[in-house]
Amino acid sequence: MAELKGNLVIGQSGGPTAVINSSLAGAVQEALKHDEITGIYGMMHGIMGVLNEDFVDLGKQDPAVIEGLRRTPSAATASCRYKVAPEEYDKALEVLEKYNIRYFFYIGGNDSQDTAKKISELAKAKGYELRAIGIPKTVDNDLPVTDHCPGYGSVGRWLAIGVRDAGLDTEAIGIVDTVKVIETMGRNTGWITATTALAKTSTGKSPLTPLSKGGNLQVEDEAPHLIYLPERPFDEEKFLADVDAVYSRLGYCVVAVCEGLVDKDGEYITASSRAIDTDKFGHRQLGGVAQYLCDVVANGLNIKARWDKPGTIQRVSMMCASSTDLEEAYMVGQMAVRHAVEGKTDYMVTLVREPGPEYKCTTGLVELEKVALGTKRVPDEYINEAGNGVTDAFIEYARPLIGGPLPEYVRLEKIPVKA
Amino acid sequence: MAELKGNLVIGQSGGPTAVINSSLAGAVQEALKHDEITGIYGMMHGIMGVLNEDFVDLGKQDPAVIEGLRRTPSAATASCRYKVAPEEYDKALEVLEKYNIRYFFYIGGNDSQDTAKKISELAKAKGYELRAIGIPKTVDNDLPVTDHCPGYGSVGRWLAIGVRDAGLDTEAIGIVDTVKVIETMGRNTGWITATTALAKTSTGKSPLTPLSKGGNLQVEDEAPHLIYLPERPFDEEKFLADVDAVYSRLGYCVVAVCEGLVDKDGEYITASSRAIDTDKFGHRQLGGVAQYLCDVVANGLNIKARWDKPGTIQRVSMMCASSTDLEEAYMVGQMAVRHAVEGKTDYMVTLVREPGPEYKCTTGLVELEKVALGTKRVPDEYINEAGNGVTDAFIEYARPLIGGPLPEYVRLEKIPVKA
Repeated sequence: MAELKGNLVIGQSGGPTAVINSSLAGAVQEALKHDEITGIYGMMHGIMGVLNEDFVDLGKQDPAVIEGLRRTPSAATASCRYKVAPEEYDKALEVLEKYNIRYFFYIGGNDSQDTAKKISELAKAKGYELRAIGIPKTVDNDLPVTDHCPGYGSVGRWLAIGVRDAGLDTEAIGIVDTVKVIETMGRNTGWITATTALAKTSTGKSPLTPLSKGGNLQVEDEAPHLIYLPERPFDEEKFLADVDAVYSRLGYCVVAVCEGLVDKDGEYITASSRAIDTDKFGHRQLGGVAQYLCDVVANGLNIKARWDKPGTIQRVSMMCASSTDLEEAYMVGQMAVRHAVEGKTDYMVTLVREPGPEYKCTTGLVELEKVALGTKRVPDEYINEAGNGVTDAFIEYARPLIGGPLPEYVRLEKIPVKA
Repeated sequence: MAELKGNLVIGQSGGPTAVINSSLAGAVQEALKHDEITGIYGMMHGIMGVLNEDFVDLGKQDPAVIEGLRRTPSAATASCRYKVAPEEYDKALEVLEKYNIRYFFYIGGNDSQDTAKKISELAKAKGYELRAIGIPKTVDNDLPVTDHCPGYGSVGRWLAIGVRDAGLDTEAIGIVDTVKVIETMGRNTGWITATTALAKTSTGKSPLTPLSKGGNLQVEDEAPHLIYLPERPFDEEKFLADVDAVYSRLGYCVVAVCEGLVDKDGEYITASSRAIDTDKFGHRQLGGVAQYLCDVVANGLNIKARWDKPGTIQRVSMMCASSTDLEEAYMVGQMAVRHAVEGKTDYMVTLVREPGPEYKCTTGLVELEKVALGTKRVPDEYINEAGNGVTDAFIEYARPLIGGPLPEYVRLEKIPVKA
């Protein structure tokens, strides 16, 4: 493959995460090693930066700043949710030609991979040599082919710790704050919601007795007790029966629900109907399902329910970033550049889980057309039969992604006192 | 003061926090040093554990478990929100006598201090020698006399980091997700909401240029841009004008609001009207104000708004516990026992900020009757004139409480690119 000399552009798209800047750092630091890459530019607000000729020079930053991106959340070159109109692709390509951009990288989810694919196709049609590689990023973890997506492990760790702590809270004060419903992100898939199951860590690991019970803590006694994913139609009657069963056994109940829950007709349980809340891809703003379900519980069971909705904090916060996720996000950025320099184009970098008992992850490539606009849902083998929890197979899949073990807590032993 | 030989009982009350178990550990480890304290018992579910004779032996736990409480969130002896009925105090005292309990410690907020006071008064009236000391705990930071309350520094650190990260998110993607409203806890006071101002850290500290602006980042450009406390009546018209002004300047806006915001008539903006959502103290369950204000913004300004409500996670999570808070919580537990052994009774331990340029905190004592049921609101000098932010005096007050500096992030410099 002949050496291709020219400039590189990279952009960030979609909801910012704890680790998307790590992918940017990986790409920039790799690009700096290659002489054929003459300039390294960042698109401001993703593809809009190309259309507006709004770039930032990433090659001329203080190296400490690029390194610092690895511990900085959100999107340093700013992000967008912009669907390029058919007539705008010509303009985009003109700008790339004008700036002699020969390497095009787009960090994002399936919509972003589609954008990269279309630009590359147009370049080919016009005879402009361009190498376009997609870099995966989505907390939703719904891209096909790749084992998982950068960003997912960090939201998983955040929720595992947050739900564990919030669950201990309910365990301690469930006597009055009986039911807690925690709403997680997840547009059409339950990958994020499912990670709340990683909050269950004490089982079989501690000889300590939970104070509210007479014996060792069982897995079904640990929060979250019920987990609802959009992969199963949500049934309010069944939900109430599930909550009632946990409440009858423990005296309290912690529930994790996906913001994108749908009923048997595929309609969102709650979603904004305001026109301004629908983005250019036709996605409606979600949120409010936990509050709604608290009303359902209060009205249906006459017990008190409260809700937490950590919202964007779960997606973007660096509080609990997964060390594994941070490393892998860096790696996909780095490998995207390496593959492009080698001559590859029209691929997205994937994460590949190597076989064996120890978790080991390398990278691969998949054609952009195979991931663009596709969505991977949580498979049946990861969802329990009752549709209100996950299986051990899911736990095995997800646990390595959230980094090291959760912080270790203690429980008192129920040593009785005599008068 | 004659030595008082007998058993000790300690209980945890109200909303669990990241550090209430540190106070428990401080008390237990101190009590173990004193021979006159023969048994160390924990009330299960606070004062309900006394009424139900439901105790756990804390003196016989593995010492590693007691030490481990210092890193374990929530309430290890379980908590309650229980208002002791007048006729139940006799029963409580009978149980204390039955178990030869001579030292009574209650960790909690103003309702809990009132309970401790009443039990002690009854013991005096009946001639039963009992030493009762209150240990402060409330994320609300609304107890009188004490400089601040254990639990507050940790929720402050959590919100400072969480709101900074969520603010960077809006800065990156505000082009589509324009307004973000973050709802914090705080029943009748804005202490918690005010800590979100500690998210503003870049100002004057970084030579880096925010990408969306031409110059250095100014404090008014950093999230949160607007902060509303219940100490000022909330006016929707003024709120819309405030949001509109920030939006016009920056193109996006991040708002922090207290769940307990009230209108000019003192009515909560949003609160549950369900009977089961009112606790034994007459407190109604709050929550939902951020969602409500998103509707106000969408309808009033026709721009997109989304909300985060971290809920109980902010209160209880160990994710971002303040090292200062953890130490001080331990100290108040330790000092409570030390003072009781010295002969003190009917006091609450306070945190006392020593004068001088360096933050230094010691403990003091205040009569229970001076704190029971009292509420300290955010004083005028901590709230800005416009009623939509805090003053530098508040920042000086609060910054040392959240522990060390926030994690250091980087910003790219806006180095332009020429075609």
